[in-house]
Amino acid sequence: MTPDEFRSAGHRLIDWIADYRETIGRHPVMARTEPGSIREQLPAAPPESPEDLEALIGDLERILLPGITHWQHPGFFGYFPAVASPSSVLGDLLSTGLGVIGLSWQASPALTELEEVVLDWMRQAVGLSEQWRGVIQDSASTSTLVALICARERSSAFGLSRGGLQGVSSPLVVYASEQAHSSVEKAALLAGFGKEHVRSLPVDSEFALDPEALCRAIRADRAAGKTPCAVVATTGTTASTAIDPVGRIAEEIAGQGLWLHVDAAMAGSAMILPECRHLWEGVERADSVVLNAHKWLGAAFDCSLYYVRDPQHLVRVMSTNPSYLRSAADDRTVNYRDWGIPLGRRFRALKLWALLRMEGLERLRSRLRRDLELARWLADQARSTPGWRVVAPVPLQTVCLRHEPPGLDAEELDRHTLAWVDRVNRSGEALLTPAILEGRWMARVSIGAEATDRGRVESLWERLRREAEG
Amino acid sequence: MTPDEFRSAGHRLIDWIADYRETIGRHPVMARTEPGSIREQLPAAPPESPEDLEALIGDLERILLPGITHWQHPGFFGYFPAVASPSSVLGDLLSTGLGVIGLSWQASPALTELEEVVLDWMRQAVGLSEQWRGVIQDSASTSTLVALICARERSSAFGLSRGGLQGVSSPLVVYASEQAHSSVEKAALLAGFGKEHVRSLPVDSEFALDPEALCRAIRADRAAGKTPCAVVATTGTTASTAIDPVGRIAEEIAGQGLWLHVDAAMAGSAMILPECRHLWEGVERADSVVLNAHKWLGAAFDCSLYYVRDPQHLVRVMSTNPSYLRSAADDRTVNYRDWGIPLGRRFRALKLWALLRMEGLERLRSRLRRDLELARWLADQARSTPGWRVVAPVPLQTVCLRHEPPGLDAEELDRHTLAWVDRVNRSGEALLTPAILEGRWMARVSIGAEATDRGRVESLWERLRREAEG
Repeated sequence: MTPDEFRSAGHRLIDWIADYRETIGRHPVMARTEPGSIREQLPAAPPESPEDLEALIGDLERILLPGITHWQHPGFFGYFPAVASPSSVLGDLLSTGLGVIGLSWQASPALTELEEVVLDWMRQAVGLSEQWRGVIQDSASTSTLVALICARERSSAFGLSRGGLQGVSSPLVVYASEQAHSSVEKAALLAGFGKEHVRSLPVDSEFALDPEALCRAIRADRAAGKTPCAVVATTGTTASTAIDPVGRIAEEIAGQGLWLHVDAAMAGSAMILPECRHLWEGVERADSVVLNAHKWLGAAFDCSLYYVRDPQHLVRVMSTNPSYLRSAADDRTVNYRDWGIPLGRRFRALKLWALLRMEGLERLRSRLRRDLELARWLADQARSTPGWRVVAPVPLQTVCLRHEPPGLDAEELDRHTLAWVDRVNRSGEALLTPAILEGRWMARVSIGAEATDRGRVESLWERLRREAEG
Repeated sequence: MTPDEFRSAGHRLIDWIADYRETIGRHPVMARTEPGSIREQLPAAPPESPEDLEALIGDLERILLPGITHWQHPGFFGYFPAVASPSSVLGDLLSTGLGVIGLSWQASPALTELEEVVLDWMRQAVGLSEQWRGVIQDSASTSTLVALICARERSSAFGLSRGGLQGVSSPLVVYASEQAHSSVEKAALLAGFGKEHVRSLPVDSEFALDPEALCRAIRADRAAGKTPCAVVATTGTTASTAIDPVGRIAEEIAGQGLWLHVDAAMAGSAMILPECRHLWEGVERADSVVLNAHKWLGAAFDCSLYYVRDPQHLVRVMSTNPSYLRSAADDRTVNYRDWGIPLGRRFRALKLWALLRMEGLERLRSRLRRDLELARWLADQARSTPGWRVVAPVPLQTVCLRHEPPGLDAEELDRHTLAWVDRVNRSGEALLTPAILEGRWMARVSIGAEATDRGRVESLWERLRREAEG
């Protein structure tokens, strides 16, 4: 493809995306295809000869689009929002168009230095002190894996340089609440700790980690000859955006050598609002923090921001220095390959740079405040409507609801919840993803798509009542 | 940003990228900025108010571009090629524009099913049997980490469900050649094996792993009460594209329960050429293979293809199933979150789909054959020119060269090599990244940028002679 062919195909595709975003509300939010039905429509063998963009767009519209769940749809209330703001789409396009790879500082100095600058901008924007240095990872799952590996190496005095976890005499233990994201246990298992050394701690009535339970678990493990290694505190759990008390947890483990990782994947974006920062009070005492700029904030996936207070430790755990990657500038620069798992790196800072510059923090703050207000409004409606219950606190933009008709036992209530949520999803107007809290299914309404407005949440509430109350 | 603002800014950016690609040859290939000089030109604080795309493009051209090493430049012969073919740039733009996240099949069925189809296309294109199933990872580093974790869990009978590596009685050991990529040792250390349990094996005169040395190392470890766990064989090492004998390695370890991972990050792309497939003869006996479609083939980074023969094992190691991710379709679909580390996933299949359809395999094969021919031509020139030596076999597109003036001792020769390579790089006309082979620096010429042609390699050879011979 020549640059001129790219030019005309590129214009066509930009128009297609602009049209898609403009008319996205006309699609049913959730894909309703049957498993395998898209695969069956695609050729079984790879193409030998070139085709043009129109052929691809034809297949995109005819075959793929019915299999898309529209995350940018104003009626998307599922999972957590993953806003791919148009400005960040442009920043990402620039990254792919430049096609440079950040194997090392020398491999493209601008890639590294813009990442340093933009991560420092975000540090300031969320109110972290100057002690923190950041790097972009693909996801919070990966960031948490990196954090737990760093914890493992601190507790084992760099066991990796000797026998690894296979040489540890007192087993290392990881702690998190039972409401922590599934990626915490996954990270601990991938890092080799073993399920027997991962503690899933009870939560309080607001679904937040109970620091006293943590304290008891640590004492019991020490008594059993084990070595408490790391605590993951969550600022905004996945089921209900519960807020673990970071400050009290830090207090409980102070001086005991445990690594404190704060998983603020969801709530981290909210910290651009000074009025939300009390939610992670104590974060300055943590060793690492992750926040996903690709969720509510608006940077296109993948853009998970991982901050540490001791980058030298991170580099010591992650670094490699083969001859084919060395450059004369190595000791005067940051080499982000030593801040994470992959060697190759996209120029991901560009999408965050484009988002921050083309939106500006003021506008981002207003959007997030709009969503907080919409969530409060929805929770108020539910609280004041007979038969409805808000089943968890609403510190952010996610409202956990149940419609509880009288006379249903627990299992009937679960069936009712799943059935009306399914009816909402099948309406095409909205998407909710239910979750289990205290052993019972509930409906999560996670507000935050960029296109969602007050009218959309009002009609959602009508739809919920219609489908649930029947 | 409204869809219409996106439309006009998008057109502007597409034109900028087309112009950039069209005139890329006018830039010096390698950035020559001093550490920190880009950072210093950028504002220290984040922007409060929105700016338009022109402001960004201004800063891009003025501040960032001088700090870009141009990987798509026809004179890029450094590292390995990382072709971001314009067609795949468009596919990636579509992915970001759609802004959907593949947390699960249900989260966007098309994302999963297109990935299944395109990975099966690539399986056929590189001549792997129907036994293999593939998934896109970000990089070979991550793929190799996944492979070694899977090996660890097979050897430990799923130790992760018990005490992890902390409960292993006979330490698990990983084997690779001393020419294997640094990511192999890094993966083994991150997975917890420990440096004492990673064997760096000697190579033969062609820099390929010596299967007898492997055999001896395995025997010695068994005798010492250790458990041989995994071998990583490399098809195309980083320093010299050496080819480990996969078939002979598989033969040596047959029936011993070791995991065989084939790192074909570089050479995997060559397997679309039937005449190259003898290079990984025996690959069908491996447990996992990685090939980077984002290197020579042309898919924009990140697009590392990881193939396994036993996806159920992979899923058992990687899976999590919290309530907030469950859907009714789970047992009838692939959930790629359970095939790797991150939960969130971009719609990366689109860039490979766009590449394969808009280029077609025939055209991709011709480009790769062109590069193989150019490498042979360059090697022939060097072999027939007094004072020059080709220091490693040239099975692919990378030529390892040394200019050896008479009378220099080993250290003087190193200084000479690094000096003339530096002069080549400072010329702006070409970029080479040197590496160490048999303890001595040599110049690597890694051909494969899409824009490189015969004339460019001819003038490179003139430039090499001029800078080295003085």
